[in-house]
Amino acid sequence: MTSAVGTDGVPEIARRARTAARDLAGATRADKDAALHAMAAALCDATTDILRANADDVDHAEQSGLSAAMVDRLRLDPHRVAAMADGLGAVAGLPDPVGQVVGGSRLPNGLELRQVRVPFGVVAIIYEARPNVTVDAAGICLKSGNTVLLRGSSSARHSNAAIVDALRKAAVDSGLPADVVQLVGGAGHEPAKALMRARGLVDVLIPRGGGELIRSVVDEASVPVIETGVGNCHIYVDADADLDQALQIVLTAKAGRPSVCNAAESLLVHEATAGSFLPMVVPALQAAGVTVHGDEAFARYDGVLPATAEDYAAEYLSLDISAAVVPDLDAALEHIATYSSGHSDAILTRSQAAARRFTAAVDSAAVLVNASTRFTDGAEFGLGAEIGISTQKLHARGPMGLVEMTSTKYVVTGDGHLR
Amino acid sequence: MTSAVGTDGVPEIARRARTAARDLAGATRADKDAALHAMAAALCDATTDILRANADDVDHAEQSGLSAAMVDRLRLDPHRVAAMADGLGAVAGLPDPVGQVVGGSRLPNGLELRQVRVPFGVVAIIYEARPNVTVDAAGICLKSGNTVLLRGSSSARHSNAAIVDALRKAAVDSGLPADVVQLVGGAGHEPAKALMRARGLVDVLIPRGGGELIRSVVDEASVPVIETGVGNCHIYVDADADLDQALQIVLTAKAGRPSVCNAAESLLVHEATAGSFLPMVVPALQAAGVTVHGDEAFARYDGVLPATAEDYAAEYLSLDISAAVVPDLDAALEHIATYSSGHSDAILTRSQAAARRFTAAVDSAAVLVNASTRFTDGAEFGLGAEIGISTQKLHARGPMGLVEMTSTKYVVTGDGHLR
Repeated sequence: MTSAVGTDGVPEIARRARTAARDLAGATRADKDAALHAMAAALCDATTDILRANADDVDHAEQSGLSAAMVDRLRLDPHRVAAMADGLGAVAGLPDPVGQVVGGSRLPNGLELRQVRVPFGVVAIIYEARPNVTVDAAGICLKSGNTVLLRGSSSARHSNAAIVDALRKAAVDSGLPADVVQLVGGAGHEPAKALMRARGLVDVLIPRGGGELIRSVVDEASVPVIETGVGNCHIYVDADADLDQALQIVLTAKAGRPSVCNAAESLLVHEATAGSFLPMVVPALQAAGVTVHGDEAFARYDGVLPATAEDYAAEYLSLDISAAVVPDLDAALEHIATYSSGHSDAILTRSQAAARRFTAAVDSAAVLVNASTRFTDGAEFGLGAEIGISTQKLHARGPMGLVEMTSTKYVVTGDGHLR
Repeated sequence: MTSAVGTDGVPEIARRARTAARDLAGATRADKDAALHAMAAALCDATTDILRANADDVDHAEQSGLSAAMVDRLRLDPHRVAAMADGLGAVAGLPDPVGQVVGGSRLPNGLELRQVRVPFGVVAIIYEARPNVTVDAAGICLKSGNTVLLRGSSSARHSNAAIVDALRKAAVDSGLPADVVQLVGGAGHEPAKALMRARGLVDVLIPRGGGELIRSVVDEASVPVIETGVGNCHIYVDADADLDQALQIVLTAKAGRPSVCNAAESLLVHEATAGSFLPMVVPALQAAGVTVHGDEAFARYDGVLPATAEDYAAEYLSLDISAAVVPDLDAALEHIATYSSGHSDAILTRSQAAARRFTAAVDSAAVLVNASTRFTDGAEFGLGAEIGISTQKLHARGPMGLVEMTSTKYVVTGDGHLR
């Protein structure tokens, strides 16, 4: 078995992934679940090695001046390693999407047609995030029958190598190829660029990270891409909203966990309710530590900064929110059409007509009525595991679980049918 | 109403398409079907104009030395115009995919979740083919709620302009925006390249044409692409095949209509049956005008040319077939994994075990048992209308009808749900 990070180039690594994918596509659910449980056990057994490698990464990150928040995201402890292992066990408990028959019929000429879920083959993931993504991605890809090429952050490279070493050993012990999961090593941007251009070797590339990473992938990639996770999410408080309820939703959606993609970034308020709602929401947001970037109506309040077009377009991921008063629902729809990233947008209203118009007109992965944008999430939606939240319209839109990590093929059976 | 071909650049055209898409997304099935019927009538009414424009294109094509076959594909007559109109009527008769609820549940916290089909928005199609594609694409996009940007072959530009003029007038008469369908004019490659880079304006780009067009789109595009229609389709005659049946399937799949993407391009024969089958199939193919490019076993027959790796990789689209004898099913699977374009591959066998292994192992859009590869087709599969045959794994695989021209969105309804 080769080590988790070798010196091979992306084409060699991807070819090994493709070979392993042919074996993995034929694996039964029992094979895959056994491997997932073995991987969970292997992670626990390797806790000491993983924490030692992680300490190297953390030392290096602190020396190189990474922010305390970033260092905290990087840092593992025994509890976090155990949680990663538990995640693999949870994936083992989910239904196998491969082999599901999603449609079919007997054609007029007697041909039998079945449309069956199959793995993509080789999935590549480029991510900036914490080492737990390494384990989550490996588990979801394995269960959906895909081999995976992982290009993680260089700041987590020792942690990721120790984790992937454990996963690969467990795969082999379970009778699967080691190459069901591989790290893509190498310094600089070249390895990631080579993944983006590996046509015929990589079936799908999923970038997980900030807007800049995703734009660069979309511009450079010749392999199919699923864009994820950029969220400029809006909450529109309609003329007819329950204002106490609206206040709680806005506060939790903004300030509960501001660093995630489904957090609210922009607040729109119908002018009929602005006189009542602004005196409630502005001080409450400020008391929660939120800086409000508002239009003229908001800027009349102390501490509110004037909002620019950049503010309305921003995915802050911080304790900031852009805010505007709109004359009516149409203006809210226009604002959202202009600025939304198409992730999640919510209306708060008691009007059935307004809710119906909003859900029909807003072109986003999730459109919510009287609920926080933070509900757009694989776990909340009951997917069991999530590889990311697609903000594109092709293939998958919204939270992606195991089913979204598959393609289909037609199986057509005849008895000598000529054409 | 602006004319079908203006001098505007792609960004302006695409912005008009996006504006029209917001109107069209809200159109009911009744609205759309009425427009389709109006378009069909308008095409018939404009037959004289369309045929006059087509005569210009045909003259120009003949003067510029286009092949007789290409000129024939370009040429329209009253019967062909009527057939295009009939096609629009058929699309009107199909169910509307927009608004279909494809999944949903009540979550443990009481949130109601619905996953609903919605249009992509703006679809761009780059095509080299006959003027009837202009009408087919316009009809399918309209019914699926998408506005369409059509970049046709310059050799059909007068025909396409006359057709799209008629379609746009009918759209307006039916109360829809003219810009539900627009031609992208301009000379050279720049307009097509601008479509490929129109991020945020074009939701999906579908190239329809030869391998070279598709490769160039995949390399250049930053908008999401669905690859279509390159077919190096295999027929594998197993040890246990019914040879009389196999002979008929191979002959019709190769020689019935060799210019289409689902025609057979490569024949593999199990060595146990080669001694019986080759003396049947080689003369029969040759009698049908087919040139056989074979391995050593085939090359023992008069008139068989030696096959190279290029032959095995070729999508001939002509009366040529590559051929090889393989020692067993595994070797056939390996050959197909190496050379298939992932469109359609067939096994001919009486063995249930061989059929099961083949359908599981071959990673193509359609895998057929005892049937011609030519059955991979929207009409044969009962889709009613087809925009192309996807040979990629993302989003759609195999023949694409109305459903494949949609995305989904989640609609989430609560009553003050906090997170």
